[in-house]
Order: sequence, then structure tokens, then C-alpha cells
Amino acid sequence: MTTDTLPVLAILGGTGDLGTGLARRWAQAGYEVIIGSRTLDKAETAVADLHEVMAERGVAEVSVRAMENLAAAEAGDIVAITVPFSHQAATLELVKPALQGKILVDVTVPLVPPRVGRVQLPEGGSAGQIAQDLLGEDVAVVSAFQNVAAAHLQEGSGVDCDVLVCGNKKDAREQVIKLVEAAGMRGFHAGMINNAAAAEALTSVLIVINKQYSCHAGIRITGIGD
Amino acid sequence: MTTDTLPVLAILGGTGDLGTGLARRWAQAGYEVIIGSRTLDKAETAVADLHEVMAERGVAEVSVRAMENLAAAEAGDIVAITVPFSHQAATLELVKPALQGKILVDVTVPLVPPRVGRVQLPEGGSAGQIAQDLLGEDVAVVSAFQNVAAAHLQEGSGVDCDVLVCGNKKDAREQVIKLVEAAGMRGFHAGMINNAAAAEALTSVLIVINKQYSCHAGIRITGIGD
Repeated sequence: MTTDTLPVLAILGGTGDLGTGLARRWAQAGYEVIIGSRTLDKAETAVADLHEVMAERGVAEVSVRAMENLAAAEAGDIVAITVPFSHQAATLELVKPALQGKILVDVTVPLVPPRVGRVQLPEGGSAGQIAQDLLGEDVAVVSAFQNVAAAHLQEGSGVDCDVLVCGNKKDAREQVIKLVEAAGMRGFHAGMINNAAAAEALTSVLIVINKQYSCHAGIRITGIGD
Repeated sequence: MTTDTLPVLAILGGTGDLGTGLARRWAQAGYEVIIGSRTLDKAETAVADLHEVMAERGVAEVSVRAMENLAAAEAGDIVAITVPFSHQAATLELVKPALQGKILVDVTVPLVPPRVGRVQLPEGGSAGQIAQDLLGEDVAVVSAFQNVAAAHLQEGSGVDCDVLVCGNKKDAREQVIKLVEAAGMRGFHAGMINNAAAAEALTSVLIVINKQYSCHAGIRITGIGD
């Protein structure tokens, strides 16, 4: 990967609503995307679906491939994980060697079903911190996208939601903010990785609001003078 | 207090930036406000300041009194607490008997100086939960206003920030949402009291953003179809 080329983006657990939503946006923005899954079959189905959606949108060429999660993590320059919290640790353990020296975009929200509207942060403080602790210092874990509804990501239109971007390395946060912008949103430096707790907790609040308004709520940062 | 009259609002630790900001807005909205402090002197100074500001704004009559915290808690129908986290428990212990049967609006944010931009939620999960546990079930603790900059509250103009309102009793949340609206903002039912963790954690993120933009950032809930 040189400074002239876009990084290859791998999405682990990329067949779910969040993963396919990000895949669509990044592919459409010109990134080479790898959809990873536990089985190649599921990843291939997701890739086929994505091509169909792009055809409907009149997007001529996108570069999207299907792989199993480990191969995806090996092939990606930047790796995102969009699995349920209950699968986060096992998935990261599997791909840990492949992530060394890379950025991991952690999209995990530590919801505890069935009470997903209740803030129940894990031991360790946040899913983002858990990922950083598990992967070690040579992986730059950056937490992002916790407050964006998957339904909005899957649409082709603009997303009325800002993204809080937490991580211990500024350069890594900046690279992820570029990916946020490529996906059509504003990203904000939101502090070190343990600040992921804020975005993760907020997701449960947004779920509570969604139930009241039958909507997919998000947030905007106000007052920054733009 | 009947349904025809507005509740009397007491603000414990009401001489700080947040407390005086809320006092100004509620007084201007026609509520009878009691500014409580550890010493009557300080409360009286705050009341005098408030009258000056109201005069500057051309607001003819407001009803604001000064009291020590315990007397304020006794005299208020609804009691707000706007002390630093380090004083929250001691202040609540002092006024606990006076709060029974009432609503406590907890504005506490568990910041840990000097690293106030770092999310460091307390044992117990949140300041709101700590207050509820300390005061017992006969006090309806409602967490609110954590993400609104005091500087904006002190101004007379509109505030571009929504307020997340958490508490175990819906009726109590609704009464606090009325107070949010009286102060010029939108309030959202944001779940049970432990969900206060989300708003409290978010304050540190907003502090991080404030430093980058030299601003007083806030949040807006988006996507609710308004």
C-alpha cells in the first residue's frame, strides 16, 4: 500500500446489516473491499447481493471479493469487524496474527440481548478497549460507527449521523475518519480507545429512542461553529 | 403543589456555572427558583447576580431565593443537583430526608480531573445510578443536562443541544422533560437511570471535541422524522 493507492478494506463478519452497509458505501467510494465471513458461501452471497444493489444504482464497477474471515484479515490493509459482541473476542483471537501492524476498525456494540435498550458496558469498560487489550499494542484499534443505523448505511442516500472515532493513535484515527467521510458522514476525534464506552453506551439510548419514534435515530455534534 | 401551579425548583450547588445557567432559564420561564449552596452568603450572591442579568435582559419579575442546601431541598418540589462529582454523595447524604417522595434531577458528570476528556465511569456504573442507590426507591432520580455547556445555558439565546433524560419512572422523566423544554431545549426519554452512563460518558467526548474546535459542543438526536 503506497500513499497513492487506497487501502484495501476487509470487513470481518461482513455479511450482516452493518457489514454490508459499510461494504456498499466503501465499494461505491472506490475502495477495494473484502467481505469476510465464517464461511466462504455466506461471503459470496453477500458479494453477489452487493453487485445487484450496485447495478440497481447504476454503479458500473466496484471491486468486492469474498473470503473467510482469516483470509480477509490477511488480505486487508485496514480491517473492520462488524460481528455481534458475543462473537467479537473469538473472531479477534482467530485473526490476531493477521492484524499485527494494521488498523482494526471496531464497530462492536456490547449490547446484552434481550435488553438491548439498557446500557450494560462490559468488564473492561468497552468493546473497543477489550479489542485493544486482546490484540496488543501493535494493532491500532479504532472504534467507530456505533451510532449509525445499519438501515441508513445500506441506503444510497446521505446519512444524518456523525461518527465518534476513538483510538490511542491519532494517525490511525485520521485514517478511519477518511473512511467515515468516504461512507458519507462526518467523523470526530473522540479521544482514546476507552472513550469508545461513550459511543457504545449511546447505542442503547438510541435504541430506546427508536422504539418511541419508530425510527432509526442518530446523533449530530452541534456547536462546533460550522 | 397542585396541577395548576408550577413546581418550586431548588438547585443544590446552584452557584456554579451550570446551576446559575439553569436558574436563569427556569426563573425566566416563570418558575419559582431556590438557589442552594453550602453557605447562605454564596447563594445570596448568586441570586443578586441573577437579578442583575434579568434586569439587563429586560425581564421584569423573577422569583428567586437563596438558601443553604438542606433548606433548599426541603423547600423545593423538584430538586436539582449541580455539584462536582466529588461532592455529589456528601451533598445527597445531607439532604436525603428532604428528598423523599420528590424528583431529584441529577446533573452530575463523573469527570476525574485532571483528565476530564477521558471516560472514567465510576463503580456503580454512573453518577445517576449512584444517586438512585444512595437515595432509595422513594426518590425518583432523573439524570439530565449532562451534555449542555454551562456557557450556553447562561446565555439568553437558544441552545443547540438535546437533553437525554434517564430515570426509572416515566412520570418523573416527563416532568423533567417539561423543565428541559422550559429551559429551551428538547428532552428525550433515554431509558432507565443506569442509562445515564451514556450521557455522562459523552460529556468527556464533548470535552475532547471542545479542545479541538475551541467551542462548546453539544449533541442533537437525528432521524426521528421531525
